[in-house]
Amino acid sequence: MLGEVEQRNVGYTEIQADTLEEVAAFGIEEAREKLYGPAMIEDAGLFIESLKGFPGVYSAYVFDTIGNEGILRLMEGVADRKAVFRSVLGYAEPGMEPIIFKGELEGEIAAEPRGSGGFGYDPIFEIGGKTIAEMDLAEKNRISHRGASIRALNSWLASR
Amino acid sequence: MLGEVEQRNVGYTEIQADTLEEVAAFGIEEAREKLYGPAMIEDAGLFIESLKGFPGVYSAYVFDTIGNEGILRLMEGVADRKAVFRSVLGYAEPGMEPIIFKGELEGEIAAEPRGSGGFGYDPIFEIGGKTIAEMDLAEKNRISHRGASIRALNSWLASR
Repeated sequence: MLGEVEQRNVGYTEIQADTLEEVAAFGIEEAREKLYGPAMIEDAGLFIESLKGFPGVYSAYVFDTIGNEGILRLMEGVADRKAVFRSVLGYAEPGMEPIIFKGELEGEIAAEPRGSGGFGYDPIFEIGGKTIAEMDLAEKNRISHRGASIRALNSWLASR
Repeated sequence: MLGEVEQRNVGYTEIQADTLEEVAAFGIEEAREKLYGPAMIEDAGLFIESLKGFPGVYSAYVFDTIGNEGILRLMEGVADRKAVFRSVLGYAEPGMEPIIFKGELEGEIAAEPRGSGGFGYDPIFEIGGKTIAEMDLAEKNRISHRGASIRALNSWLASR
């Protein structure tokens, strides 16, 4: 199981790339050089199938500019609303090749924003008729892509 | 004046950043290490005022995913259609700090795509009622943001 985790804002270079895996693989190399001991970084994004994966790797930027309103405009009248939240986690220890862990959450883009919980795209991402912003924190953590990638790392740490 | 220019696909890291200047400043450092002699890189983007600068630094990615159709959807019913094309050029020679040159072209987002020339966002970017895609190459080169940044470099080279 994980021991203590400390969040440190050392900063690392986020590259432009097609996949979160590339961003994390590049970033963990830089982060590990700035930290002593084990290092972990996480990057996440929303990938909408009918928009060729947009906003994808640039989800934070897209949220800050066109926001959920923009995403819903782009999805007006679009029948295929399939989307996936992805979380990619880079982990490294001194003297070891970094490892990438992933988590995914499949869902659909809602017709309009609903719910007041969560943040970012949570109000427009729904599963079984409920948006993430309509879930309580326990429910969100149980299904979330970040929860999944963290648990994957946790299992790996516990198993060796 | 510029002498011979050779295009080489050495590749360099494009970072995620708020401005083209940051992307070019980071990239030219890497490109110069890979090249002998003077090196130049160029990055460009479309910045739409009412969309907080979107698609900006990620213009290529946005074009490849939601395209001009997506931009026009986001601009439906939006009165303020002001936009600017920006080109940023990083130039370096051995033993010298890189210099950044810029070019801009102000215009507006058209109501629908027009014209068959150019590429990318050219059909939806208009100046004085004419889109870039409706201009011939000579006209485009005379006003273009890339033309401006290249001429700025050229003047600098000629003046020293």
